[in-house]
Amino acid sequence: MIYFDHNATSPLLPAARDAWLDASSRFIGNPSSPHRLGARAEAALARAREKLALSLGCRPAEIVWTGGATESNNTILAHLAASRTGEAWISAIEHPSVLQAARRWFPGRLRLIPVTSQGVIDLVWLKRELATAMKTSQPAFVAVMAANNETGVIQPWQDVGALCRAWSLPFFCDASQWLGKMPAAGLGSCEFISACAHKFGGPQGVGFIKSTEPLLPLLLGGRQEDGSRAGTENVAGVLAMIAALEARAGTDLLSAHLAQRAHFEAALIAAMPDCEIVGNASARLWNTVCVIMPEIDCRQRWVVKLDKLGFAVSTGSACASGREKPSYVLAAMGLTSEKAARVLRLSSAPETAPADWLALLDGLLCARKELGA
Amino acid sequence: MIYFDHNATSPLLPAARDAWLDASSRFIGNPSSPHRLGARAEAALARAREKLALSLGCRPAEIVWTGGATESNNTILAHLAASRTGEAWISAIEHPSVLQAARRWFPGRLRLIPVTSQGVIDLVWLKRELATAMKTSQPAFVAVMAANNETGVIQPWQDVGALCRAWSLPFFCDASQWLGKMPAAGLGSCEFISACAHKFGGPQGVGFIKSTEPLLPLLLGGRQEDGSRAGTENVAGVLAMIAALEARAGTDLLSAHLAQRAHFEAALIAAMPDCEIVGNASARLWNTVCVIMPEIDCRQRWVVKLDKLGFAVSTGSACASGREKPSYVLAAMGLTSEKAARVLRLSSAPETAPADWLALLDGLLCARKELGA
Repeated sequence: MIYFDHNATSPLLPAARDAWLDASSRFIGNPSSPHRLGARAEAALARAREKLALSLGCRPAEIVWTGGATESNNTILAHLAASRTGEAWISAIEHPSVLQAARRWFPGRLRLIPVTSQGVIDLVWLKRELATAMKTSQPAFVAVMAANNETGVIQPWQDVGALCRAWSLPFFCDASQWLGKMPAAGLGSCEFISACAHKFGGPQGVGFIKSTEPLLPLLLGGRQEDGSRAGTENVAGVLAMIAALEARAGTDLLSAHLAQRAHFEAALIAAMPDCEIVGNASARLWNTVCVIMPEIDCRQRWVVKLDKLGFAVSTGSACASGREKPSYVLAAMGLTSEKAARVLRLSSAPETAPADWLALLDGLLCARKELGA
Repeated sequence: MIYFDHNATSPLLPAARDAWLDASSRFIGNPSSPHRLGARAEAALARAREKLALSLGCRPAEIVWTGGATESNNTILAHLAASRTGEAWISAIEHPSVLQAARRWFPGRLRLIPVTSQGVIDLVWLKRELATAMKTSQPAFVAVMAANNETGVIQPWQDVGALCRAWSLPFFCDASQWLGKMPAAGLGSCEFISACAHKFGGPQGVGFIKSTEPLLPLLLGGRQEDGSRAGTENVAGVLAMIAALEARAGTDLLSAHLAQRAHFEAALIAAMPDCEIVGNASARLWNTVCVIMPEIDCRQRWVVKLDKLGFAVSTGSACASGREKPSYVLAAMGLTSEKAARVLRLSSAPETAPADWLALLDGLLCARKELGA
């Protein structure tokens, strides 16, 4: 199988596997335990915290380890609801774990930031509406993800962050699809950041929060993470996550990957002029192609056909599959549900070879032929 | 270092490591993804669910994977608070993740079940008080852990379960210290069960809930786990957890371990008659010795001295360390805080050799000499 579903989960990198194995044999104590083996595990976590803080540009004490981005996002939303008054201002294309947590914790005080047809949040709208809103009541916070998981469209998080600072509003940026693909530097300037390891070749079940303030814990119990998150820390998982991040930071092939993808997209459109790249006029993650395929009865058939041909691709977000509904992300961009139903998401990794992209192009052409589209 | 802190965290078993490595290379897809690699990961999770359900005695659909016991306990308490009226009846010696979550989710409707001086919940009290309470208002549920983490004292969870069934009350049993040490069979009869992998040689950061009813999710987002828990499943973690559980189930050396510990305790008391075994008249986990050491200025010194002598032991629960306070578990048993401050917890694993226990005895005697106790 040739794997083009890295936005759903990216296979474990050798560096992450080695770090996990190493940690599992070297740091066997519970970081909270009062003996040397506990202290060693705690010290290993502290070193990992320093490395991550350095790459994000924040203080190590601002990092809280979690069990993944979904837990991170739910924790941040619960914390904000308990510690702030005012409305939650959230982009309409946030991940379901942000949107649904916002609906739970901010019932009746939720405002969605619209996006353009190119899949970018409407910064003009945000500036104008914020200026108006600030005259009467201050929002609790603003949340805009760094890059969208379905389209790969990069959001102007630096601009939104600056805008929030100007209004003294906390800014929350879900960096799950950004981290490990784009430079981490500068993320530390956001008040709240969330991400997880398995989107960049670390293990599943581990992630983190960066928070400028002490968090009200969603998970209660022990005094771990300075009281921000109870539960025995996943030491091997954390060290493997940092190893994956370091490995990915070392593969700075941004322009090469962008060129490769541009070549693929150009060749695809040349061969199938009725294809349409979603967000093609926007800055997008170098690894993601979100494409509206030619009309057949349903997009599921494209996935199935490509699967048989040996390619793992997705219909969009993996989170919603099984219950196929038109994507709310694509709907927010103004796509009709008919068009949205024909979307494929192709997402690569630095490990993806140029030959894989060429093979995928052949696969798509072959699938079209066999599907009679 | 000779490790006697398995109740805090038990080092990864080779079988769990192998399962994790195998899963990391074989099941690389996101279980929610619509291609073959996703389906394979989903099938692997389904097989793990069947194995665990079989060992507990419940239906596979009742298993929900989580990021650990703390998340499991917080989720169960939040679910019960949202789905039930009435008081939460909880033993006074539950793990902090149960007690604190109960305080959050059942404010003003929490009742603590007392324990005897032998560290067992007072079943007579519970029968009597439940009979009285049922005349006026039905409790929301009853929670009693299977075995206590600090003392190793086994709780009469089967009796409490039967009592709850007789009154048609849901019964929640935190089995974190039981599973992997004692037979799993029968736990499936409890409405709610929680546990995690790293207490029995699986990886940190993974656990599960067994629930007879669909759970209201604490973590919102994707539709994973039938809507009971959002977030990409930790496939390798789950498979490693099940492998660890199977490995531990294979080492059924209960009577040998009990004899070994009895020998250790007898020798300890013979050598230091002023030592006192907590809960010594109660049925206890075969791996745990909770001992009140002879008077010196503080118990921390025992741990530090033993650490220097090459033994990793604990002062009690790892969760509360760093902020040493007299244990509420020992206080609930009626121990004075002076006595509680002299408690050491020694906890072994099936891998612990008889020679390790002998060495520990020597270590304690040596420590006593050096501490001048």
